[in-house]
Amino acid sequence: MAQKPSIPKGTRDFTPAETVKRDYIFNTIKDVFKLYGYMPIETPAMENLSTLLGKYGEEGDKLLFRILNSGDFFSKTDDKTLTNRDLNHISGQICEKGLRYDLTVPFARFVVQNQNELTFPFKRYQIQPVWRADRPQKGRYREFFQCDVDVIGSNGLLNELEMIQIIDDVYRKLKISVVIKLNNRKILAGIAEIIGETDRMVDITIAIDKLDKIGQEKVNEELKARGLSNNAIEKLQPIFAISGDNTEKLQKLSEIIADSAIGMKGIEELTTIFSLLKGLELNTKVELDLTLARGLSYYTGAIFEVKALDMEIGSVTGGGRYDDLTGIFGLKDVSGVGISFGADRIFDVMNHLNLFPEDIASTTEVLFVNFGDREVLHCLKLAAKLRNNGISAEIYPDNDKLKKQMSYADKKDIPFVAIVGEEEIKNNTVTIKNMKSGEQKKVQL
Amino acid sequence: MAQKPSIPKGTRDFTPAETVKRDYIFNTIKDVFKLYGYMPIETPAMENLSTLLGKYGEEGDKLLFRILNSGDFFSKTDDKTLTNRDLNHISGQICEKGLRYDLTVPFARFVVQNQNELTFPFKRYQIQPVWRADRPQKGRYREFFQCDVDVIGSNGLLNELEMIQIIDDVYRKLKISVVIKLNNRKILAGIAEIIGETDRMVDITIAIDKLDKIGQEKVNEELKARGLSNNAIEKLQPIFAISGDNTEKLQKLSEIIADSAIGMKGIEELTTIFSLLKGLELNTKVELDLTLARGLSYYTGAIFEVKALDMEIGSVTGGGRYDDLTGIFGLKDVSGVGISFGADRIFDVMNHLNLFPEDIASTTEVLFVNFGDREVLHCLKLAAKLRNNGISAEIYPDNDKLKKQMSYADKKDIPFVAIVGEEEIKNNTVTIKNMKSGEQKKVQL
Repeated sequence: MAQKPSIPKGTRDFTPAETVKRDYIFNTIKDVFKLYGYMPIETPAMENLSTLLGKYGEEGDKLLFRILNSGDFFSKTDDKTLTNRDLNHISGQICEKGLRYDLTVPFARFVVQNQNELTFPFKRYQIQPVWRADRPQKGRYREFFQCDVDVIGSNGLLNELEMIQIIDDVYRKLKISVVIKLNNRKILAGIAEIIGETDRMVDITIAIDKLDKIGQEKVNEELKARGLSNNAIEKLQPIFAISGDNTEKLQKLSEIIADSAIGMKGIEELTTIFSLLKGLELNTKVELDLTLARGLSYYTGAIFEVKALDMEIGSVTGGGRYDDLTGIFGLKDVSGVGISFGADRIFDVMNHLNLFPEDIASTTEVLFVNFGDREVLHCLKLAAKLRNNGISAEIYPDNDKLKKQMSYADKKDIPFVAIVGEEEIKNNTVTIKNMKSGEQKKVQL
Repeated sequence: MAQKPSIPKGTRDFTPAETVKRDYIFNTIKDVFKLYGYMPIETPAMENLSTLLGKYGEEGDKLLFRILNSGDFFSKTDDKTLTNRDLNHISGQICEKGLRYDLTVPFARFVVQNQNELTFPFKRYQIQPVWRADRPQKGRYREFFQCDVDVIGSNGLLNELEMIQIIDDVYRKLKISVVIKLNNRKILAGIAEIIGETDRMVDITIAIDKLDKIGQEKVNEELKARGLSNNAIEKLQPIFAISGDNTEKLQKLSEIIADSAIGMKGIEELTTIFSLLKGLELNTKVELDLTLARGLSYYTGAIFEVKALDMEIGSVTGGGRYDDLTGIFGLKDVSGVGISFGADRIFDVMNHLNLFPEDIASTTEVLFVNFGDREVLHCLKLAAKLRNNGISAEIYPDNDKLKKQMSYADKKDIPFVAIVGEEEIKNNTVTIKNMKSGEQKKVQL
């Protein structure tokens, strides 16, 4: 009784053609990370739920995949609890572990746990899958890869600059045109302070974040719905209206929020970053975007987001400065900055715009035709020689009809087929067929 | 309230030094796979439990990590079932997914599910983690990586030969001395037939498998305990006693099992493989081992196991021919052969024997000292130039004391430190310090 095979919704198989493309993206990103002195780490797919819970908000807790305890998973749960069906309580008793939800929290946990073995500032990259029990939809998966790069244990703004350089290098190498949007959480805090709503920074950022999508009027409505005073909303309007280049925007903003110490600190940080940027020859435009907020609560300074210019899609990279990510695990006052590349969206952009190099698809360079045992013995030696010279080669494993063997080469996009029959063995030659041109020629060994 | 961070037992963090070493192993193996024309695939970490259950025996089912259903996981389970605590039944209702246990079953599932997109014979490799709820102990983990290479859709013995070549190439490149042990399940079936215990092949192989560890006498006791007749056990003794080189062993065995058609087919297969091997210049000895059985039930032809010669450790690679792996998912009569490299044991061997190349540890080649903003602006350009030439470079991100910066370079094993102060900027030079020799010299740009 054969089962019809399937995989869990929101997950994917990757065929060779897809895996090769994905590896191209991962390797390009990795190579850039390495050029800046970042080193790889890996953490387990499973973390203790105590590490993960409460780090991603209430919604995030619900989206964690939990792993059923091995053995008698009901041992801690009495009948009354079971029939009461308090799912939250019970899942805490029957599951101790969960799949990681991102790479940032495991990274913070890793830094604290391994702090005595690490050199600070610690520069690490990490490319691993993460899992979220999100409702699957186009472009959103339950298993996907993140490519994170972070430096932790340094306050210098040079790190923010380096993140921008890394983004620039990665997208230049991948040939994707992007714009880097930059803002600073301190500026957002300053704005909240100036309009008299210091405690409402989260509400304000969530609303402002939608300016792009829903427009100024709807944002105002949302701010009102979130309980902001008319006075505060009115004070926000000139900030929405700020325009000009980066320097002009910073200048105008600094006049408005001059009385907020934290806001002015944010402006000072961005001014420094923009002035450092002037000395570099970047491919990518870096744009101050005062409406950029980013959802995650742990950011405290610069925040980044990268948008592809030639395709309508969410941000392909994002990140920022965090001043106390490791605090929750017991290591206080360690500041860091990091960004995360979304491999799946990058894949979609490159596929859509046809940006993958042509020569990454084929791995076998030469296929030896199989004419039977005697010929194969001869080909085995020739193929071994090719491989010793770094040329990938295979011998068709069965003595099938020539047509079938050629069709195999064709389907696998193998560029050259080597034909070694009786005559070739006698004369110590190989007949090479170029599969693209169809041209065939004898080569003396 | 800070938590003391920890990770689930049996799992591991990998620091940069460890990850770099592991990547070295993975990349070496991958490069060999590619030279033989194998292409990468990836499958999801989570599979439907229906895909996994029943494929690894009763013991295997218990070792699967199950993932709690999202949302109302008790919705299918009534109160009576809950309080009856039939764990098997309940876990089937509250969990639909599990973490993959190996790469072989997901591969079979993949081949069936994607059969219309694949070119057969399909040659694939797959390097991904697997999870088993085994009791953790030294050298045994709950999360570990497998590196599998398989060809499916071909009966040719050339494939078996290729597996041997791949093993030879991988261990030559890793500089690990190994021996390849080879046997054939058909021979084991033939032996069972000849001693009149055709149905007992599994019992016989399980017992024979222990010959190495517990000796002939204990194996005989175990065979008796497993219900083999004295007569059958007696008939086995001359087979245990067979010695000589591979050809001699096959010759002697063929006299004993001459009346078993399947046994003689196994001998014929091995004879062909050994004769093909003679034409190749292998680094590794291939040894016929009639006591090699391998636990998994799906093998039907040649079976392989690789032992490290210079360290006492379990097999580092194993595999074999299977004639109907995809049958359970609905694709009949597709034969394949594959092997799996155990990255963790290979890591242990290389660490123990100090086989990792020295130059893989350090990623940053040049560290620029940070003397402040003016100097940094200058260094930014120099570092960018180095990176454009493929040389990894970093600028120390803070204007810390020189001693601290040098100690950072030292701890990170960075070979060269670039010192660019006021004088160097003026004269367009860089002072380079070789961190190993301590030597310092000025270089004109």
